[in-house]
Amino acid sequence: MLALAGYPLGLHCTFLDRSADAPGAQVAPIELGELDDPQRLRELASSSDVLTFDWENVPGAALEPLEGLTAIRPPPRALEVSQDRLQEKALFTRLKIPVAAHAAIDSRDDLTRAARKLGFPGVLKTRRLGYDGKGQCTLRDSAGLDAAWAAIGGTGLIYEKFQAFSREVSLIGARAAAGQLVYYPLSANTHAGGILRYGIAPYVNAALEQSARRYLKRVMEALDYVGVLTIEFFVVGGRLIANEMAPRVHNSGHWTLDGCITSQFENHLRAICDLPLGATRALGQTAMINFLGQLPAREPLLAIDGLAYHDYGKEPRPGRKLGHCTIVKRTCMERNQALAAALQRVEWT
Amino acid sequence: MLALAGYPLGLHCTFLDRSADAPGAQVAPIELGELDDPQRLRELASSSDVLTFDWENVPGAALEPLEGLTAIRPPPRALEVSQDRLQEKALFTRLKIPVAAHAAIDSRDDLTRAARKLGFPGVLKTRRLGYDGKGQCTLRDSAGLDAAWAAIGGTGLIYEKFQAFSREVSLIGARAAAGQLVYYPLSANTHAGGILRYGIAPYVNAALEQSARRYLKRVMEALDYVGVLTIEFFVVGGRLIANEMAPRVHNSGHWTLDGCITSQFENHLRAICDLPLGATRALGQTAMINFLGQLPAREPLLAIDGLAYHDYGKEPRPGRKLGHCTIVKRTCMERNQALAAALQRVEWT
Repeated sequence: MLALAGYPLGLHCTFLDRSADAPGAQVAPIELGELDDPQRLRELASSSDVLTFDWENVPGAALEPLEGLTAIRPPPRALEVSQDRLQEKALFTRLKIPVAAHAAIDSRDDLTRAARKLGFPGVLKTRRLGYDGKGQCTLRDSAGLDAAWAAIGGTGLIYEKFQAFSREVSLIGARAAAGQLVYYPLSANTHAGGILRYGIAPYVNAALEQSARRYLKRVMEALDYVGVLTIEFFVVGGRLIANEMAPRVHNSGHWTLDGCITSQFENHLRAICDLPLGATRALGQTAMINFLGQLPAREPLLAIDGLAYHDYGKEPRPGRKLGHCTIVKRTCMERNQALAAALQRVEWT
Repeated sequence: MLALAGYPLGLHCTFLDRSADAPGAQVAPIELGELDDPQRLRELASSSDVLTFDWENVPGAALEPLEGLTAIRPPPRALEVSQDRLQEKALFTRLKIPVAAHAAIDSRDDLTRAARKLGFPGVLKTRRLGYDGKGQCTLRDSAGLDAAWAAIGGTGLIYEKFQAFSREVSLIGARAAAGQLVYYPLSANTHAGGILRYGIAPYVNAALEQSARRYLKRVMEALDYVGVLTIEFFVVGGRLIANEMAPRVHNSGHWTLDGCITSQFENHLRAICDLPLGATRALGQTAMINFLGQLPAREPLLAIDGLAYHDYGKEPRPGRKLGHCTIVKRTCMERNQALAAALQRVEWT
């Protein structure tokens, strides 16, 4: 989606990926290699005007030696912070952005102490390399501690007080090197099993949106950020609790491809290439549904008025994000009806 | 733009072009060859689910032998009609679609007779292979006949009464094999030197739109058309005079890429691949400006709120269409202001 957004701007992407089957390979040149292969990264950096990433588990250490060779945007520091839930929460806290009560866990004793102090329910998570609900165990009472420890116990964990949220929302913004900032409308996201299933945008709540923008701005300025940044929040008792950030274009912003003047993909490219940022206003009331594990039949979905279908050209695999669809309508009611109709045609496996 | 519209639908294009520099080659596999090379066309037809074209001067005779090998959409008959201004006008007339008074010209005497009968001003045009104002001479009085004849005289010409039009508009629609029809909003187009410079859409005029839709429907049904079809009209004394048709995605519909739910490119693909057609409603008040001869500087244009930039990746050449930009705004006034600002930043050479 980044490569496709680049062509009209006259920008050409080259990808580094571990697999020749990567979706990017369908639409742009691809270099095969490990994401921390120093030789490959050096070649890519030397031949590119700017280096970016759309996956936050790229090893930050591998990028450091490249900083003299080309611009790396977003800054590797943002990547590193987002790779560690503890660092992420420390940054949020320093910037006065509310987070869930939490404790670092490096032993079974740490877990016992944290559970006693913070109480139940809570979630034990790996601090690094977790995504889409992987590396997480929910704890309802002290009887579950042993099982959780058996499942993912070790060093480098975090225990977080469970948030009884009424809603999950995310805010996506983009920042240019010179400081220009744009924000997309807030989206409301529905997860199951830790994976985003569908979302609607704009999610209209002026108070929440104002807080979310303030928080996102603080993070972007603190990190001297360039590119698209996403923060996911829980809404608890009418206020925002920051859950995590993603230093990249984000699944909860895929609706912007069809539902905004300038998509998150184009604005990420504009930001990292020092081009003026584009307008982020919504073109209607939208919904986005992820295709997980298998692609739904195209025809019944395309028959829904206002629906755009996005096939990433990936091999099906249980739980894998293979594509999504977007619905753009004039009113919330029309959008909700079309969303309900589309959800009946999508099966997640 | 067709290839880019195909990927999200899971459709993959292969192009046949005479030049490896063709814009399509940046985003999809390309076969090099003449557009009437029987061997190349046979290979392409045999390996494709459907064959289409985005240039109406593809030789219709070359496509005929392929009809047993794969689906050819739009039908070659539509291509043939659109390749000959006389056949085109005959079809329009048979379908009770108003056209300019005209006469076939195959000799200098024919021209003298036609000029006497139809009067001045008039336009002498080649019946075939004319586009973007090429192969045309305007005649203001009988003193100009010799010069016009010297310039383009011969057989296979047409003399048309000049239309003192107040506006040029075009209507784009798509038809599926099963008969489903969708129409885009009317666009108002500004030409100079026979080349489209800029346009606005939707051009709101309910009476004209209704007539235009009726005419387009007649043509599509008469030709058992599948795909996107464009008719360009002159508005003369408040009524439509059909100027010409294009059996393909059309420059005056490039605004649909950013300004409609489903672009003309996607709807062409949906139609020729037997997928349900997408919604054609406008997402705002839009304008489109062609980039001719040279690309304007990207930054000042991208700084205009609501503007999307489209670089086709072509080599600059005087008069060549190298790209376009689209502006999407909420109101006509905002659109007109942004259009004026953008036009100041675009130079046609």
